[in-house]
Amino acid sequence: MSYGFEFCLPTKVVFGRDAHEKTGALVKECGGTKVLLHYGSGSVVRNGVLDLVKASLDAAGVPYAELGGVVPNPHLSKVYEGIDLCRKEGCDFILAVGGGSVIDSSKAIAYGLRCEGDVWDLFDHKGTAADCAPVGVVLTIAASGSETSNSCVITNDLVEPHLKRWYDSEIARARFAVMNPEFTMTLPAYQTAAGCADIMMHTMERYFTNGGSLEITDALCEALLRTVKDAALKLVGDPDDYETRAAVMWAGSLSHDGLMGCGCVGGDGVCHNLEHEVGALFGVTHGAGLCALWCHWARYVHSECMYKFKRFAVNVMGVADTGDDERTVLAGIDAMEEFFRAIGMPTNLRELGVEPTEEEIRQMTRMCVASNAPEIGSAKVFREEDMVKVYQMAAEA
Amino acid sequence: MSYGFEFCLPTKVVFGRDAHEKTGALVKECGGTKVLLHYGSGSVVRNGVLDLVKASLDAAGVPYAELGGVVPNPHLSKVYEGIDLCRKEGCDFILAVGGGSVIDSSKAIAYGLRCEGDVWDLFDHKGTAADCAPVGVVLTIAASGSETSNSCVITNDLVEPHLKRWYDSEIARARFAVMNPEFTMTLPAYQTAAGCADIMMHTMERYFTNGGSLEITDALCEALLRTVKDAALKLVGDPDDYETRAAVMWAGSLSHDGLMGCGCVGGDGVCHNLEHEVGALFGVTHGAGLCALWCHWARYVHSECMYKFKRFAVNVMGVADTGDDERTVLAGIDAMEEFFRAIGMPTNLRELGVEPTEEEIRQMTRMCVASNAPEIGSAKVFREEDMVKVYQMAAEA
Repeated sequence: MSYGFEFCLPTKVVFGRDAHEKTGALVKECGGTKVLLHYGSGSVVRNGVLDLVKASLDAAGVPYAELGGVVPNPHLSKVYEGIDLCRKEGCDFILAVGGGSVIDSSKAIAYGLRCEGDVWDLFDHKGTAADCAPVGVVLTIAASGSETSNSCVITNDLVEPHLKRWYDSEIARARFAVMNPEFTMTLPAYQTAAGCADIMMHTMERYFTNGGSLEITDALCEALLRTVKDAALKLVGDPDDYETRAAVMWAGSLSHDGLMGCGCVGGDGVCHNLEHEVGALFGVTHGAGLCALWCHWARYVHSECMYKFKRFAVNVMGVADTGDDERTVLAGIDAMEEFFRAIGMPTNLRELGVEPTEEEIRQMTRMCVASNAPEIGSAKVFREEDMVKVYQMAAEA
Repeated sequence: MSYGFEFCLPTKVVFGRDAHEKTGALVKECGGTKVLLHYGSGSVVRNGVLDLVKASLDAAGVPYAELGGVVPNPHLSKVYEGIDLCRKEGCDFILAVGGGSVIDSSKAIAYGLRCEGDVWDLFDHKGTAADCAPVGVVLTIAASGSETSNSCVITNDLVEPHLKRWYDSEIARARFAVMNPEFTMTLPAYQTAAGCADIMMHTMERYFTNGGSLEITDALCEALLRTVKDAALKLVGDPDDYETRAAVMWAGSLSHDGLMGCGCVGGDGVCHNLEHEVGALFGVTHGAGLCALWCHWARYVHSECMYKFKRFAVNVMGVADTGDDERTVLAGIDAMEEFFRAIGMPTNLRELGVEPTEEEIRQMTRMCVASNAPEIGSAKVFREEDMVKVYQMAAEA
């Protein structure tokens, strides 16, 4: 194998207890003259984070307009609203204050500001972006990794059923990411756990592949997975532990900035792809949806990717190598299921609060194919019948 | 602890078997109009790498001037020569084809092109660089990490005794690093092993600290150290294994680009500092010099940093946790010494070919204080008497 890759991480990470105080200066450093302050449902208003960010912008003499109301699985309608507002107010820099949904909405607005035509065309894979306005992030949820990643996921809420689609481009990477782990301490336990699961999933999507990988990258993935697993368990009982919050927050960025995939050929995003459609149809929390599907996906595919599942069992889940690979691998998947339960995550669709009909399963499968391709995955290549099967396993468990 | 840090990795890494073919296009992307092709003693001429790079520049229509002859512990006189040549030839981009010495010489030339006054003032810590010409790298030795790091070490050969000094700045990070692991296959076994040792040292310098650190960073350090240790042993018998060369090459960059120190407070570069003076006085291979000193440093300081030395013993060297921490820690250091021997590295100054007199030890100590500070280190804070002691231990072993 050649294990070729390209890697660049231009986002300036500013991490620590006082990191947010640098926000205004960072916007100025990036040439921003007026900011669109973009946020979600109001938790950043209630917990005071937005005021801290405003104070930093004021101190740097950077004016801003505001647009809140971003929802999980962020909506295209809000993106259009943001583009219009930026044009009206003359904003040339989008500052996301929140987690993955707010960041992705900000990236989409930034694309829209610099593209001719409809920004949805990018997500519909009808075009590529030649330019993108600058985006900065003040992160409040460790989960998506969008603060340093090149990815962006938007849900088109203007069609029925809603369409959840992604668009990746290096030009949308945030110019800076301000990360104060204290900002994640007010998150509910469920969101904290779902975030940890999401971080682990981003890593495992790169790790589980039949395409080959670099040993150094596999080892880094395992280190990250072990750390986040232990941290997630610790945060159940001690949500205000700064050091543990810090480890998770930094792991979240590293899990999705490309580092954990350097030299990996392929990678397997099937579980993520399947979850996207559950999210689009039932509006569940992304990380929780992933947990509800993962073990079923893993049991369905493991026999075609034994080498990696065995490494995972031993090096990540701490399962003893029994000498019987099948037993070791299944014990690793069982241990993961136990871990999900221990942090309060669902391990099937029923526990997620979703009981899809056969027709809804068919619908999610059709949407998954439409959003991606007829064949996806690397640990095991999935076609429609495989997708249906894993949805059914997760629904019947 | 706050564990605050800043991190940005603007160097575009292009990795793989065909990576070098992109060199010319990368220079153009960075706006370079004429290149100074900078290299060492001629191995890149003999093994054909320089011709491959020239072919890529030609294909992209990028003209170049050439300056070879960079020596290990690269000389200030060559830097001056490079600055003069660039001015005469109108070169606005420095392309390093080689390892750490060539890259550092290139960075120093790049500083010199954009600074008023004497570039040595930077290394003499009499000033800071406001600007730096763009540098690109075609890497041929996995060791220094200089291809993605912010650091630069130059030896002033115009004074006696020679002065080896460093200067770090974000503005000198290479614009791109072309990494083809095949280019490292022609390295002699000694250089390969010394490179692996250097990579491990860069990581350990961040890992061993009493200042506190982030769990995620400690875990990544341990993963990197285990990987490079295993790879170094494998390369002794199988130097042409592409996957192992690739793991070491990528680990080399990751060990020194800042990632392995994110959230580490302090870090301990004492062993590195001590070696610099051995290198300046006796001209030894840097990685080998580090091996000759490390175990003596470790045995001298371990009792003041037991937590980290125990983690190192168990998580990196695979030593069983005996319950008796002192025994576990010393077994870890012994295992590291065994590892150095197994890859053909020296474990004391005599094996390095250096037998310093008492006066030479005093001289190296004075130089170390002059290059750094009267007190250095974090695992144990070193003063002059500690430096003398470790040099003596390494000389008498």
